[in-house]
Amino acid sequence: MNQKISRVALVGGTHGNEFTGVYLIDKFEKSPELVTRSTFETVTLLANPEALKLVKRYVDTDLNRCFLRQDLANTTLESYEQKRAKEIDRLLGATGTRSADLVCDLHSTTANMQITLILHSYQPALLHLFDYLVAIHPKIKVLSLVKPEGKNHSYLSSIARDGLGFEIEVGPIAQGVLNAELFLQTEQLIDRILDWIDAWNQHRAPRGNGKLTVYEFQESIDYPRDGGNQIVAMVHPQLQFRDYEPLHPGKPIFLSFQREAIAYDGKSTVYPVFINEAAYYEKGVAMCFTQQREIAIDDCINLPTSAQLDL
Amino acid sequence: MNQKISRVALVGGTHGNEFTGVYLIDKFEKSPELVTRSTFETVTLLANPEALKLVKRYVDTDLNRCFLRQDLANTTLESYEQKRAKEIDRLLGATGTRSADLVCDLHSTTANMQITLILHSYQPALLHLFDYLVAIHPKIKVLSLVKPEGKNHSYLSSIARDGLGFEIEVGPIAQGVLNAELFLQTEQLIDRILDWIDAWNQHRAPRGNGKLTVYEFQESIDYPRDGGNQIVAMVHPQLQFRDYEPLHPGKPIFLSFQREAIAYDGKSTVYPVFINEAAYYEKGVAMCFTQQREIAIDDCINLPTSAQLDL
Repeated sequence: MNQKISRVALVGGTHGNEFTGVYLIDKFEKSPELVTRSTFETVTLLANPEALKLVKRYVDTDLNRCFLRQDLANTTLESYEQKRAKEIDRLLGATGTRSADLVCDLHSTTANMQITLILHSYQPALLHLFDYLVAIHPKIKVLSLVKPEGKNHSYLSSIARDGLGFEIEVGPIAQGVLNAELFLQTEQLIDRILDWIDAWNQHRAPRGNGKLTVYEFQESIDYPRDGGNQIVAMVHPQLQFRDYEPLHPGKPIFLSFQREAIAYDGKSTVYPVFINEAAYYEKGVAMCFTQQREIAIDDCINLPTSAQLDL
Repeated sequence: MNQKISRVALVGGTHGNEFTGVYLIDKFEKSPELVTRSTFETVTLLANPEALKLVKRYVDTDLNRCFLRQDLANTTLESYEQKRAKEIDRLLGATGTRSADLVCDLHSTTANMQITLILHSYQPALLHLFDYLVAIHPKIKVLSLVKPEGKNHSYLSSIARDGLGFEIEVGPIAQGVLNAELFLQTEQLIDRILDWIDAWNQHRAPRGNGKLTVYEFQESIDYPRDGGNQIVAMVHPQLQFRDYEPLHPGKPIFLSFQREAIAYDGKSTVYPVFINEAAYYEKGVAMCFTQQREIAIDDCINLPTSAQLDL
């Protein structure tokens, strides 16, 4: 299981208006020693430079939904981002010139996700890494977007070998803005991730608590809309910025423009995330419901306290 | 002085990604009774519908900088927003078909401006109105962008008669997002403004405290940049979200990507506003410095406590 990680890709600017990743990648490219470790090579990539110039999420289509295997193989898909996805795959993908064993893609959100690690498969090495990171800072949350077995996913991080791809999602940050505090926290987190991979390659990776709380995606919820598809309600003030907190049946979820509260009508408690994310209005997503799940991580040992993350 | 206000224009969506105003105007257009008063006519306007479709601040150029008198008269200016400004002037301007005596333009900001009223001239009726509004809720701030005498300004609200134009600026809100709490507060504020105008027209407008604290614009400050015009520092965490708080000489203002604090090197205390506003990165503005000034408002009387605003 402890297969060596020979090349790590740090990616930012997959969305051109998410500045944390953009400026971190720029910093790393100017000071590569910050992301250099002895046991592996680090590649940095600014994924969507044209969208960055426009300070937009994307030029033609969301780059972070362009990486399905069948789409990368489809030569008729020729929008800017579809072509860019193929370029990135030819660089970092399985048969790429600088094929990456692990991909870490940096994002930000207008939702109050604080520091979230997003995984797309329950890959043992990733679970160990996340278990360690949560142990050195319990404020970090782990969100699972794992698909039913056999289905590949469309995110950039899917091009990593053996599912060793994930996103760091930080917020709340407005689009097109740098927040110094979250910038510093993300940089520190990347530093710890690279240290951990270096230790993993030397069979001395520090372990976490041995059990990881994961928020598993269940379904996305749209804003209430009228017949013309116009939004008719906002996220309720009691739910705004309450990502990862339990939402119980009967509690308010939306507030109509006429000030009528709309209750959550589900049968069980859920944990909403991506609440009121700006980029998801057009996707018909007001928030995503998740369920908490505890995952046992084998062979856990205690951590040295010196590794505490100052987030 | 107490000239009758016969027509009021409520404007939203001057910037297409500032949703508070967009959805309030939409609500008022569907329920015009909310903004109807007996002594004046109310006109509602969605100012930049094309930018709204794109969820962008503007299509070609910032509409809220297109209203200099000489630009409105210049037939060679033909970008989307330059033409739209002329249309709006032909509707609401001094010689327009529905010429507005008072213009209230609704904006939002990623800076922590809470609820800010922006004026461009020390027009007595406006000062009385703002004095009243601050009295019923002291959290409201008044920002002055008054130009040296004789200079007209380029904002949409400049088309109001006799300088009776202003902006309501609410934040912090990410672009492209609705925040229910600030939506409700803005709606309530507009309701009080319309009530006050109605009373003003009947020579019984309620007064405020008789003195108004105004934050007067001094200068705008850019982010530190390198020779290639690239940003090399962020707003310092100690200053982020601290709009309207005093900034003393020697206190940190920026933090470089190399984590070096950069101090404010001015000689006197200033009060920064629009700190880290997303739309101002391209304008070369990291924040605006203001000075506090107290303005005496004549003929003040005490307010009935029933008028308290629940912001």
